[in-house]
Amino acid sequence: MSSLTNNSSLNNKDSLNNKSSAKITLLAGGVGGAKAAEGLNASRYRDGLSIIGNIGDDQAFHGLWVSPDIDTLTYSLGDRINREQGWGLAGDTCQVLNGLQQLGVDTWMQLGDLDFATHIYRTERRQRGERPQQIAEDIAVANGVNVSLILPTDDVVATRLRTQDGWLSFQDYFVRLRCAPDVLEVEYHNAEQAKANPEALAALTQADLIIIAPSNPILSIGAILAIDDLRTQLKARTVPAIAISPLIGGQAVKGPAEKIMTSLGMRADALGIAHYYQGLIDTLVIDSCDQHLQADIEALGIQVHVTNIWMKTPQDKERLMSEVAELALQTTVGELG
Amino acid sequence: MSSLTNNSSLNNKDSLNNKSSAKITLLAGGVGGAKAAEGLNASRYRDGLSIIGNIGDDQAFHGLWVSPDIDTLTYSLGDRINREQGWGLAGDTCQVLNGLQQLGVDTWMQLGDLDFATHIYRTERRQRGERPQQIAEDIAVANGVNVSLILPTDDVVATRLRTQDGWLSFQDYFVRLRCAPDVLEVEYHNAEQAKANPEALAALTQADLIIIAPSNPILSIGAILAIDDLRTQLKARTVPAIAISPLIGGQAVKGPAEKIMTSLGMRADALGIAHYYQGLIDTLVIDSCDQHLQADIEALGIQVHVTNIWMKTPQDKERLMSEVAELALQTTVGELG
Repeated sequence: MSSLTNNSSLNNKDSLNNKSSAKITLLAGGVGGAKAAEGLNASRYRDGLSIIGNIGDDQAFHGLWVSPDIDTLTYSLGDRINREQGWGLAGDTCQVLNGLQQLGVDTWMQLGDLDFATHIYRTERRQRGERPQQIAEDIAVANGVNVSLILPTDDVVATRLRTQDGWLSFQDYFVRLRCAPDVLEVEYHNAEQAKANPEALAALTQADLIIIAPSNPILSIGAILAIDDLRTQLKARTVPAIAISPLIGGQAVKGPAEKIMTSLGMRADALGIAHYYQGLIDTLVIDSCDQHLQADIEALGIQVHVTNIWMKTPQDKERLMSEVAELALQTTVGELG
Repeated sequence: MSSLTNNSSLNNKDSLNNKSSAKITLLAGGVGGAKAAEGLNASRYRDGLSIIGNIGDDQAFHGLWVSPDIDTLTYSLGDRINREQGWGLAGDTCQVLNGLQQLGVDTWMQLGDLDFATHIYRTERRQRGERPQQIAEDIAVANGVNVSLILPTDDVVATRLRTQDGWLSFQDYFVRLRCAPDVLEVEYHNAEQAKANPEALAALTQADLIIIAPSNPILSIGAILAIDDLRTQLKARTVPAIAISPLIGGQAVKGPAEKIMTSLGMRADALGIAHYYQGLIDTLVIDSCDQHLQADIEALGIQVHVTNIWMKTPQDKERLMSEVAELALQTTVGELG
């Protein structure tokens, strides 16, 4: 880490006085990532927003390349997401899946018809050898997304989980087995060989502020940080990096974060999150009900900001994300917390 | 051709006395092919029925392998076809196509959602290296088809049409351009290299009767007969072969047959059909209104059976196809007509 207590470390001091032009790069995965992205997208920081998504849960289904996390970001930012379930497109139907079922295919992965169009489109272009980054951008634009959506890499990096019964793909674990098995080990397959996308590196080097969304650190953010150049760049940053805890009172708002952290031998609370991100962030934003962990987190060299971090409504999302951005951009890192 | 005037040339004389166990092999393409297939499928000849379909109009759409003729056969025989349009599945929706359109994709090829399931399923298995014949059989069975549906070859054979503006794929000509351009030349791309499927060869060698459906001879049957071993086998048959004219009074019941025949310099009537099949059939079934062509057709060494060949209702289909089968199986070729 670097001289974060010095204002001059900010890339562009002028831009911070006019905060709406500040460049913010968000690392986002899962539903928590989409919420944070939506909050920033609705805020005055929208114009300078770049979002690096998670591709670790990408998987081929029925011969089609499905990118659930990237799609959730896209559909959320395009305001087309099915809000009840938190993924998929609002009002989507499931005729294709019905048809596949009639053909005797196992269809545990829920994919809607409009959603299938996305996967068909993505797969065709990938098979033509086009860049996944370009494809993701075009899908985002077609869905009405106006902020920069970035893949960490164009290569395949697969989050895999070892359970008592062996290694599972992410979707096998997450959807098919509904997170039931104990996770003994997590790997980001091929991350070591994967080449960071120039867009992702640029988003990190050119940012005025880096925010890690309240996503599952292991399943969502881990796959981004497993790519060497991105992790190195985050460590070498000269601007503040702030994470928002995905755990409130030791529980994930959604998903298996605390279950996985526990089975991996980690503390399943905001302090465990702080441990995980140590060296990569300057500040951790935790919920009011976790204030008792503040001193322990600060002892790790991470500053703490306490607020209400549960994002239930669009207003919650915008308020929290604006507060976090404001906090970091108004003050030097030394004054945070 | 061979000694078709001799009863002993029939593969299994006994089976013919119990006609429902007679083996009939139908060459079928397009809507006329599906009608003939349905007629035989509804008849007492169903148990011994094999159908060789047309793959010349197969084409990749959106990265998926679409087999319109094979699907029309499958959906028709499974009684799932959209009867109004003659292709596609009854009650199908078009969300996937809507989705692709939203992504900026050209979607002139109408593909329903349940239909997409078929194409996704087929494509995935083809990409895994499975035999197209096996895939087609499994799709047929899943659609409730109980007769043997056979691909002429597992290789790709593409019907292509030369127009003033160059070569077109079949679907480009047929669907996108609605058969508007004049066809100057037709080729069955890769037919010379294609290897006939053993199932197709067996269906021809083991048949008691071969029927060519009232399909477009050039666009549907031509792609089957372009495969050397199949054409050779049909020529070397020791059983009757009967074609039903797709033209009535010089007009196709559906599709561009007479238009194409004319632009290729052929006679666009039952006599033109007889010329096209000369050497490959023993009998041509023509409509009552074309009776004036009988003598000219017979002059080509092809016997003629005159009846009402327009299949409008399920009853029409069963009646005509039973009549044709009955005719050939009851009599020796010398007595036909």
